[in-house]
Amino acid sequence: MRVLIIGGGGFLGQKLARRLAAAGELAGRAITALTLADLAPPAPVTGRVASQSLALDITDMAATGALIGAGHDVIYHLAAVVSGQAEAEFDLGMAVNLDGARHVFEGARALGAAEGSRPMVIFTSSIAVYGGELPEPIPDWAGLTPTNSYGAQKAAGELMLADYSRKGFLDGRALRLPTISIRPGKPNKAASSFMSSIFREPLQGEPAICPVSPDYTHWFLSPRACIENLVHAATIPDETWGPRRALALPGRTHRIGDMVEAMRRVAGDAPCELIRWQRDPEIESIVLGWKARLDPARALELGFVADASFEDNIRYFLEDDILPASH
Amino acid sequence: MRVLIIGGGGFLGQKLARRLAAAGELAGRAITALTLADLAPPAPVTGRVASQSLALDITDMAATGALIGAGHDVIYHLAAVVSGQAEAEFDLGMAVNLDGARHVFEGARALGAAEGSRPMVIFTSSIAVYGGELPEPIPDWAGLTPTNSYGAQKAAGELMLADYSRKGFLDGRALRLPTISIRPGKPNKAASSFMSSIFREPLQGEPAICPVSPDYTHWFLSPRACIENLVHAATIPDETWGPRRALALPGRTHRIGDMVEAMRRVAGDAPCELIRWQRDPEIESIVLGWKARLDPARALELGFVADASFEDNIRYFLEDDILPASH
Repeated sequence: MRVLIIGGGGFLGQKLARRLAAAGELAGRAITALTLADLAPPAPVTGRVASQSLALDITDMAATGALIGAGHDVIYHLAAVVSGQAEAEFDLGMAVNLDGARHVFEGARALGAAEGSRPMVIFTSSIAVYGGELPEPIPDWAGLTPTNSYGAQKAAGELMLADYSRKGFLDGRALRLPTISIRPGKPNKAASSFMSSIFREPLQGEPAICPVSPDYTHWFLSPRACIENLVHAATIPDETWGPRRALALPGRTHRIGDMVEAMRRVAGDAPCELIRWQRDPEIESIVLGWKARLDPARALELGFVADASFEDNIRYFLEDDILPASH
Repeated sequence: MRVLIIGGGGFLGQKLARRLAAAGELAGRAITALTLADLAPPAPVTGRVASQSLALDITDMAATGALIGAGHDVIYHLAAVVSGQAEAEFDLGMAVNLDGARHVFEGARALGAAEGSRPMVIFTSSIAVYGGELPEPIPDWAGLTPTNSYGAQKAAGELMLADYSRKGFLDGRALRLPTISIRPGKPNKAASSFMSSIFREPLQGEPAICPVSPDYTHWFLSPRACIENLVHAATIPDETWGPRRALALPGRTHRIGDMVEAMRRVAGDAPCELIRWQRDPEIESIVLGWKARLDPARALELGFVADASFEDNIRYFLEDDILPASH
């Protein structure tokens, strides 16, 4: 089993790489190669298998085709320009999120044609594909009504992936990720960045700004559960997956104020007092268009998982991202 | 009012051009220029305003930008590779239906930036964006679950048009056309071609093959009502149209066998006897994935229209497409 992670330098890519390297197998088959690609060569990971790292700009169609053409069985395509940046830099978002995805899919198609295989492509989409007037909880068959450029580009990517799959060019699986919290690392240009930073920074003694009211309510998943779901996606037989290639991952609906109280129960008062509440109309204009309640019936049926409570998300962050670094 | 029709050589493009030339106005403003573009320069039309014709290949980004950049207030984008051909020639479908649409939208964006305007772009999408498991009648907020490449490409075009509109680059309006029947002209590579030819050819004394059972049921609109809807789309104020840029046009659900009986009531037994019933699994594999029942509540609210009965579709064809030619 040869595995390629495009976007392997991102926080999900790195966690997924470490998880796969530690297990040494995916979908019951030994991993013989684990390749990480990103704009800069990602940090290598080791375990039962060692990774190799490469630089790749997916807006370069030829380079993307050449890298994928080297041969892979499962391609995780996690690379994207995040929501806030795709909104501010429209053409960059189109080039990376739409054209870049197409280059990946075309690369997999060419690889499949050359090898007589049907490479599996696991594509991270987003709940940003949902927007506007939809019934809540959002059923599996609603959708693709994005209200920002990131969501529109992800939705168009889903459509292409589904059609490439239907044509037999590849075996595509798109997962609509909830907002991931608590994301480790630094704040980024995602409009959702604060949904991690108001926990991550205070849990490390640093202040953070919350740009929405405590009543803002949204749909969340921990990095740990997200990684388990990314791995699980590769294990589901094609015939079980069926013709609808994209599905909304399970998550939990949380109110920001309640999430802060969950942090208080796990970590005490001090972190909560480091949050400054200061509303930002630009961020609100994006995130208020997002949805808070989904009914991910299909994903649950296929064995994907959510977190039990936001306290768990706090604990996972402390266990996975803070304690290892301080040892 | 400067109007451009891309796909102006097709049957809808030609009918729309004649309708606009005869009226001399659109949305209450006098038409000062009517430009028709297609792969080959379209037949010119005359009336209160005369058209000019140009050759344009929308897969050529620079040529598309140059033509649109010449200045237009309303751009009808009707050009497409039809469903059967998009299925058989995947890369051509992607190049014309997806990249070509993007070239048109980019051209309008550049025009708007140069003129300080927000060009109106009216884009013909299709009920082929619907497929798979959906509630029926399909509500306005369902959708974008295509089961063929044509539908996937139209759906991706809708997503781009909506996002370009939201960004203020243009004023986009996408209409999901029902299957148009009775379409004049020759059979084409659309999988739906028979849904016109089994009436059109027999009404002119020629035989035709029906590749599905009489029980096949689908969603239809006459060319005459379609043109009224294409004109109507330009008259709706932006604030009335709202943030969801695509809508399903009204239509009627008809069973093929009942449509043949409607032809019998209008034109007698002779045409019906010219239909040979011979099922074609390749065509069925596409059209059986299409939907028959929609609830186009939003379109009806905005004043779009359907036909009263399929007898009307038969009469419109005789009046609009047969009698003029024989005079």
